[in-house]
Amino acid sequence: MLFPELRQQVLEANLMLESEGLVRLTWGNVSGIDRDQGMFVIKPSGVSYADLTAEKLVVVDLDGKVVEGDLNPSSDTPTHRILYQEFEAIGGICHTHSVHATQFSQAGRELPCHGTTHADHFFGTVPVVRELAEKEVTEDYEANTGLAIVETFRNLEIDPVKMPACFQAFHAPFTWGKNALDAVKNSVALEVCCEMALGTWQLHPDQIALPDHILRKHFLRKHGPGAYYGQQGNEK
Amino acid sequence: MLFPELRQQVLEANLMLESEGLVRLTWGNVSGIDRDQGMFVIKPSGVSYADLTAEKLVVVDLDGKVVEGDLNPSSDTPTHRILYQEFEAIGGICHTHSVHATQFSQAGRELPCHGTTHADHFFGTVPVVRELAEKEVTEDYEANTGLAIVETFRNLEIDPVKMPACFQAFHAPFTWGKNALDAVKNSVALEVCCEMALGTWQLHPDQIALPDHILRKHFLRKHGPGAYYGQQGNEK
Amino acid sequence: MLFPELRQQVLEANLMLESEGLVRLTWGNVSGIDRDQGMFVIKPSGVSYADLTAEKLVVVDLDGKVVEGDLNPSSDTPTHRILYQEFEAIGGICHTHSVHATQFSQAGRELPCHGTTHADHFFGTVPVVRELAEKEVTEDYEANTGLAIVETFRNLEIDPVKMPACFQAFHAPFTWGKNALDAVKNSVALEVCCEMALGTWQLHPDQIALPDHILRKHFLRKHGPGAYYGQQGNEK
Amino acid sequence: MLFPELRQQVLEANLMLESEGLVRLTWGNVSGIDRDQGMFVIKPSGVSYADLTAEKLVVVDLDGKVVEGDLNPSSDTPTHRILYQEFEAIGGICHTHSVHATQFSQAGRELPCHGTTHADHFFGTVPVVRELAEKEVTEDYEANTGLAIVETFRNLEIDPVKMPACFQAFHAPFTWGKNALDAVKNSVALEVCCEMALGTWQLHPDQIALPDHILRKHFLRKHGPGAYYGQQGNEK
Repeated sequence: MLFPELRQQVLEANLMLESEGLVRLTWGNVSGIDRDQGMFVIKPSGVSYADLTAEKLVVVDLDGKVVEGDLNPSSDTPTHRILYQEFEAIGGICHTHSVHATQFSQAGRELPCHGTTHADHFFGTVPVVRELAEKEVTEDYEANTGLAIVETFRNLEIDPVKMPACFQAFHAPFTWGKNALDAVKNSVALEVCCEMALGTWQLHPDQIALPDHILRKHFLRKHGPGAYYGQQGNEK
Repeated sequence: MLFPELRQQVLEANLMLESEGLVRLTWGNVSGIDRDQGMFVIKPSGVSYADLTAEKLVVVDLDGKVVEGDLNPSSDTPTHRILYQEFEAIGGICHTHSVHATQFSQAGRELPCHGTTHADHFFGTVPVVRELAEKEVTEDYEANTGLAIVETFRNLEIDPVKMPACFQAFHAPFTWGKNALDAVKNSVALEVCCEMALGTWQLHPDQIALPDHILRKHFLRKHGPGAYYGQQGNEK
Repeated sequence: MLFPELRQQVLEANLMLESEGLVRLTWGNVSGIDRDQGMFVIKPSGVSYADLTAEKLVVVDLDGKVVEGDLNPSSDTPTHRILYQEFEAIGGICHTHSVHATQFSQAGRELPCHGTTHADHFFGTVPVVRELAEKEVTEDYEANTGLAIVETFRNLEIDPVKMPACFQAFHAPFTWGKNALDAVKNSVALEVCCEMALGTWQLHPDQIALPDHILRKHFLRKHGPGAYYGQQGNEK
Repeated sequence: MLFPELRQQVLEANLMLESEGLVRLTWGNVSGIDRDQGMFVIKPSGVSYADLTAEKLVVVDLDGKVVEGDLNPSSDTPTHRILYQEFEAIGGICHTHSVHATQFSQAGRELPCHGTTHADHFFGTVPVVRELAEKEVTEDYEANTGLAIVETFRNLEIDPVKMPACFQAFHAPFTWGKNALDAVKNSVALEVCCEMALGTWQLHPDQIALPDHILRKHFLRKHGPGAYYGQQGNEK
């Protein structure tokens, strides 16, 4: 069986969707990629998290061909494929319909950075990706979803490594990260930041964004070259 | 004992009410029908989910007569009976007082389709069923509840297979599906879509509904003849 | 040890506070009374639910004297005592700071009946009890809390059996019932109905109350002499 | 190993962050101090609560030097250090990004006392601490956070023993208490009081604060010299 370690991490990441309260029923999927082989491991479509095992995960290559696995891969597989092709620095992708992030998606509303919880994960405003036109839906819905995400990041000149999240209008959030677990953690952070923003605006409808110097400090103490959050640089 | 497999599924579906957070105390019931025999299996009234067993479920025929079971069937049994008689394509029914769907019911507010989570389950706007008049309440409250639901779907020319849910005004939601488990899944989806809509409207009070071409795409990739979500058509 | 069965039920009722999500830390207490002996069993003060046992519960008589028990009874014991003295038909009392019912208390806002979930438990509008004056607080805070509740029900001519709940202004809800478990179930119902009302009013700020004929139907099918909800009258 | 008992309590307090729903991922930390030795025990940075053990906790002295421990202490350690130095009566500190308290922080909104749940823990209005200026962030972000908290309490002449909580603007809450467990309990209370206030204001936007005589009564029956809540003074 290909990629036993990657399969194990992608399994764990998919199970975290449920334990972190990001999904109901089977509304979410996570994948992780092996960049050397150019293949990624993804959840099979419509399988409940309780029934998921490392063996049931599906291996797909970057042309979209199933390399290993008896089950159909997630119906969102072409979206993952495009993102892996176009965002070369990412190692994992997560898609959920988590409640508050989906509210932002359905409202077509971007999320400014209102606090350090946000700054710890997302370097600035989380963007909205437009809904697809009729032709795009008919021709190749899921791949075109990926292309619309890429188009948004190119047009807005956003680095997907510093902004590992977006809301697709009328749909739901996508997040990514260094690997599958990191992608899920960004989904957790996005969901919580959306919930926090809703209450922030109830308390202070015109609240400004976090000052830039605090945004930089929080993002960089976790993600910059001199990051000192966690056990980075601890050789003891 | 009649219908051991159906009993098992209806038991599992009723237990899911609690594990999915759709009910408190004993505020919900699920049934499933055997169309060949014209009999359905339903939760007994007022029994806690923790105490429920397949044997305690009650078998009722389409005239409303208890065929098998020592306990009183759910007080909502006549509503289920009418829906099975009038909506001949359905195989399971679920009634809950889940919080957000009940808020829509109490407000008498229909739910437009604001996103793909909704489109994956409900083909358009979830309708409101009027409350009953005094005479209807006095004469046969629970059966007349079923008739009011049927009246609404006929008047609005809605196909109950494509719209497996409604809100009864001042009361709570009813959902149905191919079988008992499917009916509960539709209750989960309805509850979540109601919660999502409340936040969507807080963020964007005049948000329009999901464009029709995306509604069709999402509903049909799961429910149409060429559905490709899940493991449909996978013979490997 | 006095009242082993009553102790067991009061223990179970107190544990339900936590399992039903009605309390955090030690913010709630339940009692149940033996009307023949004129004594009630109540939670000790400040003891965590995880540490509670039937033996740790305290027996108090209707003069407020501890009859059995090594621990201090709940600081709210005098409130319970007054309610047992003045509302002679009740058998259990529950006090929590559950979030949504406390929001109504803090806002000094009564809860009209907006749906059948409410009508199944409370026959009409749940009233607000005024906060205490300085003299009442200084002299006998907890007993005067009970007296203010009684005063409210007398002034408004409300039967505490048909309306087993109230909100004390700036404080929190009190509920009661036939016994300790029934009192807790009414706390669950009150908490959920408050949450439902908040969303109902977001969707429809001027929504009218449930029509009277539906209120009567729902309350009486569960609580009237001809009640048919649950297994009442089932001699099979 | 230093401070085995203190380590055990600080471990339990950190685990409570997760069991009480105050944190997601690793967004919170608790410490407790040994005043005799002038050293405190604190969570290591970025370690998940599931992996935490008493041995992994880090001992730090009041100069900020790690005295015992192989892991990096929490990145917020300098904030804890300053608070222990300046607030000499406190024995434990807790920092979380709990959702509702963070909403208040992000909105820069203080929390008036709207009810007895609040009065049981916080003697008056919970204050907002200003965000840091660019220079403060660059030079010593975490220590300056502590100094800004101290500055706020001094300027407003608030006794940190009677007000064991604050919101830092654009960031999140800090609480403290007699010891680590008490600090976490105050975080629970703050989170719940923030959630309660949001609903209170939805129901009654101009609601006044709890009258002073009730605030005093509730705070003092739990915390004053004649406190009678719980088992204080029970020598039986």
